[in-house]
Amino acid sequence: MSHPYRPRPISGFPELLPEVRLVEQAYLDKIRRTFERHGFASIETPSVEELDVLLAKGETDKEIYVLERLQADDASAKDARLGLHYDLTVPFARYVAQHFNELTFPFKRYQMQRVWRGERPQEGRYREFQQCDVDVIGVDNLALSFDADIPAVAMEAIKSLGVDDVRLHVSNRKILDGYLQVLGIEDRVTAIRWLDKLDKLGNVPVVAGLAAAGIEFEAAAAAVALAAIPVGDPAWADKARKLAAQSNTTFDTGVEELTTVLDTLAALGIDNVAADLSLARGFDYYTGSVYEGRFINYPGYGSVVAGGRYDDLAGSFINKKLPGVGISLGFSRLFAKLQAEGRLPIGPSTPTQVLVALPSDERRALALATAKQLRDRGLNVEIYHAPQKLARQLTYAEKKGIPFVWFPPFDDDGKHEVKDMGAKTQSEADPRTWNLPA
Amino acid sequence: MSHPYRPRPISGFPELLPEVRLVEQAYLDKIRRTFERHGFASIETPSVEELDVLLAKGETDKEIYVLERLQADDASAKDARLGLHYDLTVPFARYVAQHFNELTFPFKRYQMQRVWRGERPQEGRYREFQQCDVDVIGVDNLALSFDADIPAVAMEAIKSLGVDDVRLHVSNRKILDGYLQVLGIEDRVTAIRWLDKLDKLGNVPVVAGLAAAGIEFEAAAAAVALAAIPVGDPAWADKARKLAAQSNTTFDTGVEELTTVLDTLAALGIDNVAADLSLARGFDYYTGSVYEGRFINYPGYGSVVAGGRYDDLAGSFINKKLPGVGISLGFSRLFAKLQAEGRLPIGPSTPTQVLVALPSDERRALALATAKQLRDRGLNVEIYHAPQKLARQLTYAEKKGIPFVWFPPFDDDGKHEVKDMGAKTQSEADPRTWNLPA
Repeated sequence: MSHPYRPRPISGFPELLPEVRLVEQAYLDKIRRTFERHGFASIETPSVEELDVLLAKGETDKEIYVLERLQADDASAKDARLGLHYDLTVPFARYVAQHFNELTFPFKRYQMQRVWRGERPQEGRYREFQQCDVDVIGVDNLALSFDADIPAVAMEAIKSLGVDDVRLHVSNRKILDGYLQVLGIEDRVTAIRWLDKLDKLGNVPVVAGLAAAGIEFEAAAAAVALAAIPVGDPAWADKARKLAAQSNTTFDTGVEELTTVLDTLAALGIDNVAADLSLARGFDYYTGSVYEGRFINYPGYGSVVAGGRYDDLAGSFINKKLPGVGISLGFSRLFAKLQAEGRLPIGPSTPTQVLVALPSDERRALALATAKQLRDRGLNVEIYHAPQKLARQLTYAEKKGIPFVWFPPFDDDGKHEVKDMGAKTQSEADPRTWNLPA
Repeated sequence: MSHPYRPRPISGFPELLPEVRLVEQAYLDKIRRTFERHGFASIETPSVEELDVLLAKGETDKEIYVLERLQADDASAKDARLGLHYDLTVPFARYVAQHFNELTFPFKRYQMQRVWRGERPQEGRYREFQQCDVDVIGVDNLALSFDADIPAVAMEAIKSLGVDDVRLHVSNRKILDGYLQVLGIEDRVTAIRWLDKLDKLGNVPVVAGLAAAGIEFEAAAAAVALAAIPVGDPAWADKARKLAAQSNTTFDTGVEELTTVLDTLAALGIDNVAADLSLARGFDYYTGSVYEGRFINYPGYGSVVAGGRYDDLAGSFINKKLPGVGISLGFSRLFAKLQAEGRLPIGPSTPTQVLVALPSDERRALALATAKQLRDRGLNVEIYHAPQKLARQLTYAEKKGIPFVWFPPFDDDGKHEVKDMGAKTQSEADPRTWNLPA
């Protein structure tokens, strides 16, 4: 037999065995249920956007994949160039602008799709991965209460997976922004990009980087001092105010907003939330609250959830003021770590709950009828495919992790029996009434 | 405000408004439930495959999209070229070969993912679309009963959507293959590709095409005669045997298999099934049963479900005999037609079942607690975002199609009330016990 090509994994494009996929599916279902229970509507956007849309915010560091047709002809050269989306925020902003007249605001949506980035793959970083985003967008203004609702929903979704060691770091871009104004630092975008690296690089290299970017040493050191207030310090507001020394409207608003958001998150009963003034989020479209959730147990692993408030993202595409706040749950990254740490409840490799054994070809009709009776009550049922020895049929069930094997009677006088593969017990049963043990 | 780019739809990449997406989601859930109820396990494969895999069966007419990194560097030139998959069958075959030692056979999987083809978009034909595939693959052999099970599951899935006007056309490649042998036609692949066009072109052009391909006129006319046996003719087997005149093992096996498959489908209670000897399916990897489902009411629309048995698809990648049978439900094509014909039950634009009104900012905590009580019992609940006039809050619910609005008491002596937006009735209710009317 010819096999011209021996398949191998493609680096950065993970795929799962059925038993792991079943867990992934259950987790995605739970996340979806949480989003829906909070009234978010699902949307999906195409996997591609025109390159102009992907580049509208000047994001060129996202390693976009561009599509080329293998058999491109002259006609296709006129088509706009298409790139795979690298996140779900930009497509959402484009969606809102495009369908503005057909949506009711505040528009609350969730979106669970794959995204692509042509980066070098590494632990927790893929070229194709799944994001689960929740965002809300309003017209002209958007209540501050959403700045707590959105991360609360994300944290609840994570908790629904049985994961309780993700800590949400929260800050507000206005704090840093106002503070940098006070310090007289003009190029705040550059400064924030440097401060965002504090975590990875440490204080000294960031001060040096800021200085190299033309910021006076004293101001650079003061900037780092604010970011160095310990994560979760209950006195963060007082300490920040003391460092700022003089009043500044942006700064004051930021401190107030962050205080409100933290208080609301506490009132909503969300655990593991901490003020973190070092949090900047490199993306320049955030304008208020910013969030980042990380594993407490794996501090070096990077964020598994991130987001914030943006004032004019959809406004890049339409002449409206459309403030929004959103968060993105990095599902693939979260899931991969849980898998690597052996924290997934991996079980069967099939959703089948009952395998109906096939006693003989003559009794196939009986097996079919039995399976139908069980399925009609919502059970997942398959019929063994050939009248082989029962030992072989049981081995098949065992290998796939099917919890129950059903034996239709071998002759007209016999009774139906069902075997519990875990408890290794077998008993008479009626296919019209039998159900899974609770 | 700057808006450098005014967004517009991308031809061939459809996207849905929330109220349509909600129906799509419900339909996909039903299809998934049907697949699982029959014991098929979910897998997903990456959106890309190496080009060598995509081209392994010589399929160059599928208009593959190849990925290029926007910021490609010298290092990336060494990477294998990746293309977006154009169906889910080739990735599945590759998956089975790659994970052969980790799977239990017969391996029954379903796969619901997007696929891409860079074709010119037209009615029901997109560049990005959703397929829902069910396949089973065995080692060395695979029971013929699966040739009925697989299309039965697909037809049941379609029926679960309330769609009962799709007819399944069934044939067996061995019939045509053996028949062409009898006729002395050697280039059977070319002949079958021509016969596959009978539907679109009619008899005369196909006879002419066959003749032009070097097939004698008489043989060409005889080939067309078999394919011209009316769809669903109960006497198809006798008529076919009469046309074949002489015995041929391949032909006889094909007639026997098709008879068995049709009988089994009838025994499984699947309606709208018809023998159709004109059915060839251009793909050259089918070796036995072939299926194609089309709307009875829209005969020109093309197939919404298609598949068949293949003997060596995974064998392209591994030195094993891995026969399989599968079917692909063209979800996007099916859904688009239902939408175009006004057959979708389009309702609310949100999954929210209860909107909790916000009487005042002071009573936000009460609204939150009320929402939590309702959510804890599984209801989808949102809280209105600002203490605006009740009329405005009701308008929001109405616009989004939220069926119930909950009024927490305005003062401590008041009672909770709930308004049924459809029935326009309002009554006292307890958030700890209230449920949706059955």
